Parts: sequence; structure tokens; C-alpha cells
Amino acid sequence: MPSFISILEFLGTFAFAISGIRLASGKQIDWFGAYIIGLITAIGGGTLRDLLLDLTPFWMTNSIYFSTTAFALLATLLFKERIFKLGEALFLFDAIGLGLFTVVGITKSVDAGLPVWVSITMGTITGTVGGVLRDVLLNEVPALFKRDIYAVACIAGGLIYFLCQYLAFPSAVVETITAVSVILLRLIAVRFHLHLPVLKNNYTGEPDEKL
Amino acid sequence: MPSFISILEFLGTFAFAISGIRLASGKQIDWFGAYIIGLITAIGGGTLRDLLLDLTPFWMTNSIYFSTTAFALLATLLFKERIFKLGEALFLFDAIGLGLFTVVGITKSVDAGLPVWVSITMGTITGTVGGVLRDVLLNEVPALFKRDIYAVACIAGGLIYFLCQYLAFPSAVVETITAVSVILLRLIAVRFHLHLPVLKNNYTGEPDEKL
Amino acid sequence: MPSFISILEFLGTFAFAISGIRLASGKQIDWFGAYIIGLITAIGGGTLRDLLLDLTPFWMTNSIYFSTTAFALLATLLFKERIFKLGEALFLFDAIGLGLFTVVGITKSVDAGLPVWVSITMGTITGTVGGVLRDVLLNEVPALFKRDIYAVACIAGGLIYFLCQYLAFPSAVVETITAVSVILLRLIAVRFHLHLPVLKNNYTGEPDEKL
Repeated sequence: MPSFISILEFLGTFAFAISGIRLASGKQIDWFGAYIIGLITAIGGGTLRDLLLDLTPFWMTNSIYFSTTAFALLATLLFKERIFKLGEALFLFDAIGLGLFTVVGITKSVDAGLPVWVSITMGTITGTVGGVLRDVLLNEVPALFKRDIYAVACIAGGLIYFLCQYLAFPSAVVETITAVSVILLRLIAVRFHLHLPVLKNNYTGEPDEKL
Repeated sequence: MPSFISILEFLGTFAFAISGIRLASGKQIDWFGAYIIGLITAIGGGTLRDLLLDLTPFWMTNSIYFSTTAFALLATLLFKERIFKLGEALFLFDAIGLGLFTVVGITKSVDAGLPVWVSITMGTITGTVGGVLRDVLLNEVPALFKRDIYAVACIAGGLIYFLCQYLAFPSAVVETITAVSVILLRLIAVRFHLHLPVLKNNYTGEPDEKL
Repeated sequence: MPSFISILEFLGTFAFAISGIRLASGKQIDWFGAYIIGLITAIGGGTLRDLLLDLTPFWMTNSIYFSTTAFALLATLLFKERIFKLGEALFLFDAIGLGLFTVVGITKSVDAGLPVWVSITMGTITGTVGGVLRDVLLNEVPALFKRDIYAVACIAGGLIYFLCQYLAFPSAVVETITAVSVILLRLIAVRFHLHLPVLKNNYTGEPDEKL
């Protein structure tokens, strides 16, 4: 069981790293810069979670996140054409990563004795903040704010987690159901183009003096 | 007394959340993205303060900040035209929030045994960093850097706080005078268009290799 | 010996602050905004390091970083033409700051009992993150990602640090050799225009729905 989780976590980290490296590749960034962007995409969410929970950042105790990102960069350099065309498969890895990272975030928060709504927030932060940092560093408005079912899938997964826990399922079952729910919600949202409405307004430009 | 402070803190959080949601509404962002931007605007400053002071982030122990932001989003969706035209009233709430958040930041730092200049810095961080994060996430140069009397009002308020404390005023009086000072300074600065000079230079563009 | 280090650390902080103020000066930012940008450039890296290591942020215990930045702003206002033309000398200060900040970051991490690769990461974070924050706040893609030999110099310096420690050199010698190595690597890289290759790709634009 742990080795199965480890393989999926490796794939999730790999997919998040590739998503950072891929976006960096259109921006006149060198190999090392692409590595850093990929790394921040993969570990950014969990790092903010650990800072907020006053825990040692998870990547300090295991070098696999740094080496997986190096592997992602190497794969990109060797098989660039094919990696960038791997849309479907990468998207699946990304969804798997999202599901697993969400579960890890919730579990760590529950272990720290936090209430339900904080734990769901931490699961969502773990899954999404890496991508937000990637976009901010590359000078884009974060895709998260335009791609609602991403964060919403984490929140729905969190609600399912605590429903399963309330029903007294064993923890391995709770975690599996949660991760699978997030992954399926994400796949369904993309498949059927599900979106929340955009907030429109005539107001544009910089915040004015009055606010 | 605590209920009066609570009402003002609620109004301040509400005003900061509205300022985030309002700026988000010009950027093709969906409802949930607008909620997150509003939330970060309202809680970003206090969160950085608590991380720097090694305290539990304040919003983890009380869900009112999340629900106030939800209320701000709901109000925006229901009364969009009116909310966005509420310039004067919102600006007043924002100034009230700034004054109260500054006092909270200073008080928490004094309780943690920090020196005067660090406490004033923490008060300023509490009042201003949420707006900086809002602007960075929406891909704007932060308004803070162009709207000097904003942060300067926090610093002046901090000096007044420690002057009052030196004069041995009771803490409730010190806190009230400080909050009112920040609010009045902000109102006066906007009313009379008070600005610090802009730093000009022929130098433009990206940092070059030599620096 | 400590006073020599202090002078160099002062020069490094000064150079980093100037680099922030200088970049701010092309962006319609006022004096106080320029001060904040300069301060964040100078202390941003060490602050993130201390948050990750769960230490009190270094600048809270000594006001010299705030006053050095004030001195940098004053110097800029008084001698603007000359300061902005100080390319060579400022670049030297910046390289000195980079070398010293890297050593401080590694030493703090070793003292905290962290493994070699985490310590090298912390040295690199200490030296580089301030400049990344400067660029993000001013709405630029961070120069770090395009100027590889900057972060790579920190990493190489880290490897030299642990090689010297393995050879059982006294700590003052280890630290001096490390700082000098980072500085020389940086000077050589700029002198001979050494760069890593840019990661190219046909893919451009925002991350798509599939990833």
C-alpha cells in the first residue's frame, strides 16, 4: 500500500513539475530557471501548508521532490516534443497529484487537531498554491482564478473526506475515496467543460484612491 | 466594548474583501476566484504577521473571516451596481479596517515582547500586505507603492501608539487613539490629495546583467 | 574579523537595497514605495529562510537592515545620477552580498542540523529570493530565471563549503573560501557572458485546461 501511494505521489510531483517547466518554456527562461519553476509548482502548496501549520516543510526530510523535478527537466530536455504533446496523460497525472496532495493536506491538518473547515482549506492550499506561484512568477493572472472546478474539486473532496470519517470508515478507505473523488470531479469538469460564472463589471483598471 | 470592536473589525474585513472582489471583477475571474482574492485581501496581512511572529494564523481559530468574505461576495452578486458605486462608504470602511488591523498588529507584537520599531512594522504589515497580495495576484504593480499615505498612516499610528503608552494611558485608550489617528490621517490624505514625491529616473526596463 | 564581515554585510545589504530602489525608479513609485521595495530586496531571502527553518526573522533582532536601506534611499535621492551610473561598483557590492548571504544561509542551516542539500538550498534562497520578490512586486518575470549563473553560483559555493568542511578546515576559513568562490564565479560569469541554454518551445500562452 505505501509503495502504491508513493508511486502515485511521484507521478503527481512529476506532473506538477512538468506543468511548471512547460509554462516556463515559452518565456525565454534557461534550464535552471525552468527547474526552479517546476520545483516551486510541485512543492509550493505543501510548503505554505507546513508554514501555516508550523511544521517542518515536507521536502526538507526527503530529497525525492528535488530529484523528481530534476527527472522531469531531464525528460523534458530529452523528449521535448513528446512531453509537450502528452496533454491527456499529463492532465491525468496532474489530476492524480491534485487528489493525493489534497488528501495529504487534510490528513496533516487533522493530525494537528484542526477543525474541519481549516483542514479542507489546507487540503485545497496543498493542491493549488504551487500552480498559483508558478503563474505569479511567470507574470500571468493565476489560472486557478479562471478554472474554478480545480479548487472546488479539492473542497468537494474535503467534504467527502469528513463524511466518510463521520461514517467511521477505516482511514485508508477514507483517503482512497477522497483522492478518487477529487480526480473524478476534475476529469468530469474538464470533460463536460463545467465552469462557474465569471464575475463581470464595468469597473476596470487600478484600484482608485477611494478604495 | 468588545462587541463594538467586533462590529468594526467585521466592517474592516468586509471592506477589504469587497476591495479584492471589486478589482477581480475586471479580470475575467469566476465567482470562486473572486472569493479567494477577497479572502486573501482581508487576511493576507495578518497571516504574514502571524508567520513572522511564529503564532497560529488568526483565521484558523475563528471562521468569521471566511464567512464575512462569503457575505461580501453574496452582497456583490446581489447588489453589484450599488456596491461598486459605494465609493465613499467603502473607502470609510477600508480606512476603519486599516486603523483596526494596524492596532491588532501592534498589540500582538507588543504582547510577543518585540521592540517598538518591529511592532510598528508588524502593524503596517497587518494593514497593507493583503492589498499587496491582491494586486500581485491580479498582475498589477501594488497600489501601495503609489499611494504612500496608506502605509505612512500605519507608521504614524504606530508612533502615536507608543507615545500614548509612554504617557501611561490605559490600553483601551491607547488602542482607540491609535485606530482613530490612522483613520483620520487616511481621510485627510485622500481629502487633500497628499502624496510623497515619485522617484524618477531615466533608467527603465529590466535589471541588467551588471546589477 | 567580525567587524570586517559586518562591513561587507552592510555593503551587501546596501547593494541589494539600491538594486531594488533603482528598478523601482522606472515605475511611477514614490519614495516610500521605493524604500519598501529596497528593503524587501535586501531582507526577503533571509526572511523566507528563517520562516522555513522556524527561526525568528533575522531583521527583528537588529535594526541595521532597516537603517541601511534608509541610507541607500537617501544616497539615491542625493546622488541619483551618480548612483545609477555606478554599474561596476554596485555590481561588485551585489556579488559580495550574494556571497555573504549564501554563507549566512548555509551556516544557519548547518547549525539547525539540516542535511547538506537542504543547507545549500537555504544558502541559495538567502541569496536570491529578495531579487525574485523585487521583480514580482514590480511586475517583471524574475531576472533570476534568465540569469542562471546567479543561483548556480550559490549552489557551487555550497558544494565548495561542504568540501572544505569535509577537509576539516576551520570554520572561518570555510566561510571565507565559500564567499570568495561565489563572488568570483559571479564575476567570471558576467565577464565572460556565461549562460545556460534557454529552454525553447513552440508552446506559449496560458496553461490550458488539459494541464
